[in-house]
This record gives sequence, C-alpha cells and structure tokens, in this order.
Amino acid sequence: MKILVIGATGLVGGAAADALEAFGDEVLRASKSSELAVDLTEPESIQALFERIGSVDAVVSAVGSVPFKPLADLTADDYRSAYLGKVAAQLDVVRIGTPHLPDGGSITLTTGILAREPIRTGAAAAMANGALESFVISAAAELPRGLRINAVSPTVLTEATGYHSSFPGFVPVPAAEVGRAFVKSVHGVQTGQVFAL
Amino acid sequence: MKILVIGATGLVGGAAADALEAFGDEVLRASKSSELAVDLTEPESIQALFERIGSVDAVVSAVGSVPFKPLADLTADDYRSAYLGKVAAQLDVVRIGTPHLPDGGSITLTTGILAREPIRTGAAAAMANGALESFVISAAAELPRGLRINAVSPTVLTEATGYHSSFPGFVPVPAAEVGRAFVKSVHGVQTGQVFAL
Ligand SMILES: NC(=O)c1ccc[n+]([C@@H]2O[C@H](COP(=O)([O-])OP(=O)(O)OC[C@H]3O[C@@H](n4cnc5c(N)ncnc54)[C@H](OP(=O)(O)O)[C@@H]3O)[C@@H](O)[C@H]2O)c1
Ligand SMILES: NC(=O)c1ccc[n+]([C@@H]2O[C@H](COP(=O)([O-])OP(=O)(O)OC[C@H]3O[C@@H](n4cnc5c(N)ncnc54)[C@H](OP(=O)(O)O)[C@@H]3O)[C@@H](O)[C@H]2O)c1
Repeated sequence: MKILVIGATGLVGGAAADALEAFGDEVLRASKSSELAVDLTEPESIQALFERIGSVDAVVSAVGSVPFKPLADLTADDYRSAYLGKVAAQLDVVRIGTPHLPDGGSITLTTGILAREPIRTGAAAAMANGALESFVISAAAELPRGLRINAVSPTVLTEATGYHSSFPGFVPVPAAEVGRAFVKSVHGVQTGQVFAL
Repeated sequence: MKILVIGATGLVGGAAADALEAFGDEVLRASKSSELAVDLTEPESIQALFERIGSVDAVVSAVGSVPFKPLADLTADDYRSAYLGKVAAQLDVVRIGTPHLPDGGSITLTTGILAREPIRTGAAAAMANGALESFVISAAAELPRGLRINAVSPTVLTEATGYHSSFPGFVPVPAAEVGRAFVKSVHGVQTGQVFAL
C-alpha cells in the first residue's frame, strides 16, 4: 500500500512510518518542516498536499500540539489552542482527505492516554484527545465507500524520556509497539476503534 | 444546598432543577433568556452572573448547542461552533465558576450518549461530548479545596420526541431520571465521573 504519514519527523509519526515500511508499505513522510511539507492548521496547505501526492491508500496523522499547564492556569485561549492544534488539525485531515482516498481506504488519527487517565497539567490535552476519540466513533459510521477510521491512543512512549516524570507509575510503551498499532489500523478491518496502548 | 442551574428553561436543565428542588435544595434557575440571565459564550456574562448571585454550593450546566449535519457536510466552522457552543461554554463555567465555589462544592456538566455511540449527523456533537467527558476526568484530579466535577451523559430523553427518529432503537430515558443523575452528582461523593444513562 501507499501511505501518507503526517508528522513523520516526530516520535509517534516516525514509529508509524517505520512500522508501515517494515510491513512492506510505501510511505510518504510529511510534516511541517519536511520536504513534503504541510501545516495542518492551514486547510489550504492540507488541500495542496493531497493534490501534490495524488492517490494514497491510507492516511496516518500523528500531529497535535496542546498546552500543558495546571488547571487553574489554563485560559480560554489555551483550550482554544488545544482545539486548533490537535482537534481541528486532525478533523481537517479527515474532512479534506476523505474525497482523495480510494474505496476501502483508511484514516488513522493520534490521540493519547489523557483521554481516559488524568495527570497534573493534562486537562487541555485530555479535552483534545476525548474530542477526537468520540469523533472517530461517529465518523466511522458515516464515512462513504467502505472507508475506515480509527485512533491510536498511546500512553507515554519509552523514548519520550522528557515526559516520564509527568507520568509517575505509568508503564511507558516502546515506539515500535505504537508503530504496530498503526499497521493494525491501516491493514486490519476495524473501524471506529480507539487502539489504546 | 443552594444550587445554580444554568440552562434551567431547557429540558435537561429543567429536569435537573426540578429534581434538586424535590430533594430539598434551593435552586437558582439561570439561562440565556431568564430573568437570571447568562450567555455562556460570553465570559464576562458568566463572571457577572457569579458576582450577582454570591455564593452557591454547587453549579449545574445543562447547555450546549451543536450543529447536526451529515459528516460530509460538516465544515470547519461547524466543528468550531460545536466547540464554542458546547465545549468552551462549559469549560468557561468551570474556569470562571471554580473560585466562587466554597470548599467541597461541585460542578456538574452535561454531555450525551453521542460521546460513546454514533448516530447519523452526530459527528460534531460526538466531538463536543467526548471533549468534555475526558476533560472532567482530568479536571477532577486538579480541582482545589475538595471541589468535585462530573458529567451527566444521557441518551435521548423521552420528552425530546422531535429527536426520537434520529435515535432508532435507542431506549429513551425519562427527564425525571436524568434529573436524579444531577442529584447524585451534587449530593454524592463521586468526582471525575461520567454518569451515563
Ligand atoms: N510522545 C509521546 O509519548 C506521546 C504519547 C501519547 C500521544 N502522543 C501524541 O502523539 C502526537 C505526536 O506526538 P510526538 O511525541 O510524536 O510529537 P513530536 O515528536 O513533537 O512530533 C510532532 C510531529 O508533528 C509535526 N507537526 C507539528 N505541527 C504540525 C503542523 N501544524 N502541521 C503538520 N505537522 C506538524 C512535526 O513536524 P516538524 O518536525 O516538521 O515540525 C512532527 O513531525 C501528539 O498528538 C501527541 O500528543 C505522544
Ligand atoms: N434533549 C435531549 O434528549 C438530550 C439528550 C442528551 C444530551 N442533551 C444535552 O443536554 C444539553 C441541554 O439540552 P436540552 O435538550 O435541555 O436543550 P434545550 O431544551 O434546548 O435547552 C437549552 C437550555 O440552554 C440555554 N442556553 C442556550 N444557549 C445558551 C447560552 N449561550 N448561554 C446560557 N444558556 C443557554 C437555554 O436558555 P434559553 O431558554 O433562555 O434560551 C435553555 O435553558 C445539551 O448539551 C444537549 O446536547 C440533551
């Protein structure tokens, strides 16, 4: 299969791209600063990317920036920036990408464990993750032409050592294992699922 | 207890207010058009309401407008309006209301079954509900002074007959039963919970 991975220079997106290549796929690696450039906060940029690459069998999005602050310090602007940087950005991948996918294609988004477990400073991230996970359930039921959609929702990654102190007692998951969840989503039959790991 | 119910002219908010009164509480009924007026999309209006009413023991929010459209018709503006009308509106009740609550007070938000089950045209509503349900889990862990927060997440109400055809086979829940979930949230000990019914 030919697969577009957005956020491929990142830890999660890189793991997804590597796992899909190891599985035998041709991977197009896109990100904000890559040669295959896209800015998910700009709909025209997403549109231009899909026009540039032509048809792909599946799209993976592993992007999402959200502010981490104590609950009492989170402003309306912080929540809005979590919405724009993680939720709207990935909703636009679905909205703009759908018509470019062939029958039976798939879209896989990235959320995270904060949808279901709390950490200090995680309320805006939780909001963003929960938004996408419920969206995926609904969108799966309405996508046309046998298209599928899932979310991969990892705990903190083993390689993301800078974050480990914020996740006390959480058992980190190796990037390679997270990558395989994207292979499951792209090559499996499931839709409307959240792959929690 | 003295309890502020925002959205009290509505089906869900009215049921919450009635159930709390039946339980023996003093209820302040607020809404956009009530004499006790508030517009949750205007932070200054929320601030003014809390200043006007003085101290209350608990806040209930039963507000939230979201566009219902087929997935393929939902625009970036539709998702943004779901975010502003249901998510940001209720996040602002938490953000602005928290300092006005006494130790041990509580906040109860309203979400809905679309967080966990799909219907046609429900993707933007799902996104909004999921955002708030995951937020509640995180916020509960960070609220100060023994404050609690929960969400009541009903299926379609028996009395909301105009919506029944959009929920084929879903078993509607009577408003009075939904009202009791708010009593459980306000007078119980649970926090960070989603009361699904
Ligand atoms: N790391 C973890 O432990 C972990 C755990 C659970 C969930 N997650 C989630 O996984 C997602 C990715 O996290 P990560 O740790 O892999 O982040 P990361 O290493 O910082 O990588 C972020 C990736 O997103 C790209 N990007 C950022 N803004 C973009 C934009 N506006 N448009 C297009 N691409 C953009 C970056 O591109 P450039 O490099 O070109 O700027 C990079 O490829 C996030 O949603 C995060 O919450 C991460
Ligand atoms: N009805 C159902 O079957 C059902 C099921 C599950 C979840 N829910 C959820 O429950 C919530 C309430 O639904 P409902 O059916 O009770 O709606 P409703 O009958 O239309 O009532 C809406 C209430 O919200 C108030 N309101 C609207 N916009 C407002 C704003 N900007 N600021 C302050 N107040 C505002 C209205 O005030 P005014 O009357 O003064 O304009 C009214 O009191 C929604 O989030 C909905 O998704 C409803």
